[in-house]
Amino acid sequence: MGEVRVRAGRQARQAERAHKGQGVGRPYILRNIPTYDVLSEENLIRIEAAADRVLAETGIEFRDDPVALDHWKTAGAKVEGVRVRFEPGMLREILKSAPSEFTQHARNPAKSVRIGGRNVVFSPAYGSPFVMDLDRGRRFGTIEDFRNFIKLAQSSPNLHHSGGTICEPTDVAVNKRHLDMVLAHIELSDRPFMGSVTAEERSEDSIEMARILFGAGFVNDHCVILGNVNVNSPLVWDGTMTRSLRAYARANQAAVVVPFILGGAMGPVTNAGGIVQSLAETMAGCALTQLERKGAPVIFGNFLSSMSLRSGSPTFGTPEPAIGSQVIGQLARRLNLPLRCSGNFTTSKLPDGQAMMEGTMSMLAAIHCGANFILHSAGFLDGLLSMSYEKFMLDADLCGALHAYLDGIRIDDDQLAVEAFAEVGPGNHFFGCSHTMRHYQTAFWDSELSDNEPFEKWEAAGSADAARRANRLWKKRLAEYEAPPLDVGVREALHDFVGRKKAGVADAWY
Amino acid sequence: MGEVRVRAGRQARQAERAHKGQGVGRPYILRNIPTYDVLSEENLIRIEAAADRVLAETGIEFRDDPVALDHWKTAGAKVEGVRVRFEPGMLREILKSAPSEFTQHARNPAKSVRIGGRNVVFSPAYGSPFVMDLDRGRRFGTIEDFRNFIKLAQSSPNLHHSGGTICEPTDVAVNKRHLDMVLAHIELSDRPFMGSVTAEERSEDSIEMARILFGAGFVNDHCVILGNVNVNSPLVWDGTMTRSLRAYARANQAAVVVPFILGGAMGPVTNAGGIVQSLAETMAGCALTQLERKGAPVIFGNFLSSMSLRSGSPTFGTPEPAIGSQVIGQLARRLNLPLRCSGNFTTSKLPDGQAMMEGTMSMLAAIHCGANFILHSAGFLDGLLSMSYEKFMLDADLCGALHAYLDGIRIDDDQLAVEAFAEVGPGNHFFGCSHTMRHYQTAFWDSELSDNEPFEKWEAAGSADAARRANRLWKKRLAEYEAPPLDVGVREALHDFVGRKKAGVADAWY
Repeated sequence: MGEVRVRAGRQARQAERAHKGQGVGRPYILRNIPTYDVLSEENLIRIEAAADRVLAETGIEFRDDPVALDHWKTAGAKVEGVRVRFEPGMLREILKSAPSEFTQHARNPAKSVRIGGRNVVFSPAYGSPFVMDLDRGRRFGTIEDFRNFIKLAQSSPNLHHSGGTICEPTDVAVNKRHLDMVLAHIELSDRPFMGSVTAEERSEDSIEMARILFGAGFVNDHCVILGNVNVNSPLVWDGTMTRSLRAYARANQAAVVVPFILGGAMGPVTNAGGIVQSLAETMAGCALTQLERKGAPVIFGNFLSSMSLRSGSPTFGTPEPAIGSQVIGQLARRLNLPLRCSGNFTTSKLPDGQAMMEGTMSMLAAIHCGANFILHSAGFLDGLLSMSYEKFMLDADLCGALHAYLDGIRIDDDQLAVEAFAEVGPGNHFFGCSHTMRHYQTAFWDSELSDNEPFEKWEAAGSADAARRANRLWKKRLAEYEAPPLDVGVREALHDFVGRKKAGVADAWY
Repeated sequence: MGEVRVRAGRQARQAERAHKGQGVGRPYILRNIPTYDVLSEENLIRIEAAADRVLAETGIEFRDDPVALDHWKTAGAKVEGVRVRFEPGMLREILKSAPSEFTQHARNPAKSVRIGGRNVVFSPAYGSPFVMDLDRGRRFGTIEDFRNFIKLAQSSPNLHHSGGTICEPTDVAVNKRHLDMVLAHIELSDRPFMGSVTAEERSEDSIEMARILFGAGFVNDHCVILGNVNVNSPLVWDGTMTRSLRAYARANQAAVVVPFILGGAMGPVTNAGGIVQSLAETMAGCALTQLERKGAPVIFGNFLSSMSLRSGSPTFGTPEPAIGSQVIGQLARRLNLPLRCSGNFTTSKLPDGQAMMEGTMSMLAAIHCGANFILHSAGFLDGLLSMSYEKFMLDADLCGALHAYLDGIRIDDDQLAVEAFAEVGPGNHFFGCSHTMRHYQTAFWDSELSDNEPFEKWEAAGSADAARRANRLWKKRLAEYEAPPLDVGVREALHDFVGRKKAGVADAWY
């Protein structure tokens, strides 16, 4: 494990160079376009003031976690029962100790990612109970599906992170699946990953496995695992979540703090009201990490959504949350915290036009809002309930396009091409000119899945739609997959840990 | 026709109120979100300087139009044969007389649109020789298809404009189809429309028909018809186009000036080089309108595209043109001209995931770049070669979503909902609270085509994908279509004009 650290220095320098490059295959993206700021500073201040009022007047409940309540008392908050109220400005002050940017280390140091600042990291979707593919339709996810998605993510040059609970492996007991999931991430991927959060003990198991991989000392000083914790909106932090959040913070690992607000259900039906609530809930959660361990990394998360006013069903990939995400981005930057926001969302049950329309709108909102860690970059269908094999491939392809988008545009004399016009002259084509020859190989992003052929050629090849092509590609990728090398001693130690943890413990299924 | 003008005053005031509202059904959108500016002023100035150098050193050819060459000589440009070179700054000076914003009048004054400034107008796609639907596949467009698409546009509350050559009616002779197209726009829609540009005479016929509808005096003082003219890139203006451009300008009608640049073919392979070229070509075309008639309305147009480096095929809806469009928007605003830019583009041959992924990316670029007149908002598949009935419906649905997107977010005490949190309290839902009851009917955009139902309900209803639902919807819309009322005298006069123009003229098919 000392070796991991020795390699880290050299390979981190390589990564530092690599991530500044162009094209896919970089460990993460350094954005070269500005964020899209939709609100004036005056209106941002109004939102902050409204959140401060909610925190001071209504407050937040912290249930089933006396330690959290003690932290708040010590910090000077007003605690009555489980209700905690905060003086305006208090949480902002606490949050000053959280880093604005940090590295999450991968077991392959060349794949470590920077989270925060201008950095962008794409991670697969998280948390679906179901999986889907064109051949077998919808079914409950299994550990085999889970492992397949890790393999597909690892094989994609367009993603940067192995993710966490890519789908629920419902064939493994609830109290043991975190062990199999973390093991799969470590064995099948050499990218950074996320641990479990469904119980404090499972969070600690996840972190312990990271210690086996990286060494306990290294883990104490470096972020190597993330835990995604959800607020029980509106205005409730459940003890299961705050205990897990504190477990990650205590170990100096980053919690991702995420309210999931369906406007009109778990929050106000107005976009502005949802943002106020999200800001209040996330600030409180992020601040709690700092009370557990000052300086621990934490990610300011967000998940706004809307609802169909005809059916009452949740809707995703709609315009209001897209606008709202961009406002959340502005608020996170004013807090100087790394941001997780938006992702690729849809209610469609197929990898069809609806799925990609909604997915692209919500994913571009994640890009424009300045999100640093984009959980849910690839795979969701069915209103977050299903991971789709085909949608995963289509979304990963979109992530490839977004590399080029985030690279923006270079302006220099060669790119401006004034001499090329003189060389080619009016009415002639640029195919063979020296400027084209010099640049054509790197000029444009090239999709793996889009069909750009003429109609006749596409028809002659079988008239496949994008979903069908994606179906072929995920099968090809799984067939070609090779696991990245893993130190034999580490592997044995991990299996030993998992075996000991499982031994003699009855399966629990809820 | 006098009546049209009397009505105009009252209904224009209604429209003035209506367009400030929320939701679809407005005559056009007044954007409430900022533009997304990706480049610094310093880099914009470098692009402008490069365009100035291309205009001064390489210049532009104006072929087969001696009048255009005379205009340039009189204006002080350097004319050698058909090559025209421009001193830096000369075109900008000429362009100062073009209006930054103007109204295009509709025959129903409540549907007149403002073009320029913060206004956004969605218009159907333009120019495909083929049409497609799920039942009959791809085939050449006919006048029946053309009329169908006008009906579908007119029926959609999400579009604002009737468009122009929505598809080529290939069953009508080339030298006569402009008459049938303009007649169809006037008879089947009461929205603004575009005329023909394929020959000077056809442009003049189109404008003459507008005079029959609106009155010659009104047309001389107001914009009632647009003509979309393309540059023969690189750096060539063809006489057919400049004669049409001048015909529109002479009649005080707005030309839309559009270079269509496939990077690496008709322009440099670099994004920056394509933008330089586009700026140079468009400035020259727009300036020519001002030499023909000072103060004539004109729209600064743009169409950047990329190419697949594997196959050499053109690609659409890719990231580089999306970024490029946003730069073009910045440049157009520095010229203070109304902008047409980007639209809904794809190379997909089906209304599938690829189509909507590419379409949404390019359409959002049109929104973010500040485009005022978004030609090609709905219908394209197949690399611009086909109009698809299903894609038209899906794209129009996206246009509906973009109404909500462009409305941005309102920040006031009621929207911020601080009191609602006090009313509901932690852990309770917002379903029935007074804030939700007050706002739920207008809170969220509701798609006509997206399926937000639970999986089981969707499956029980037949598991239709978005394309299939769109197939049903366009048939329903056509069946329900009712033509807007048209004055009998105007109708007769138009038919009389068309009959006279066609009489005794042999059909030409090229």
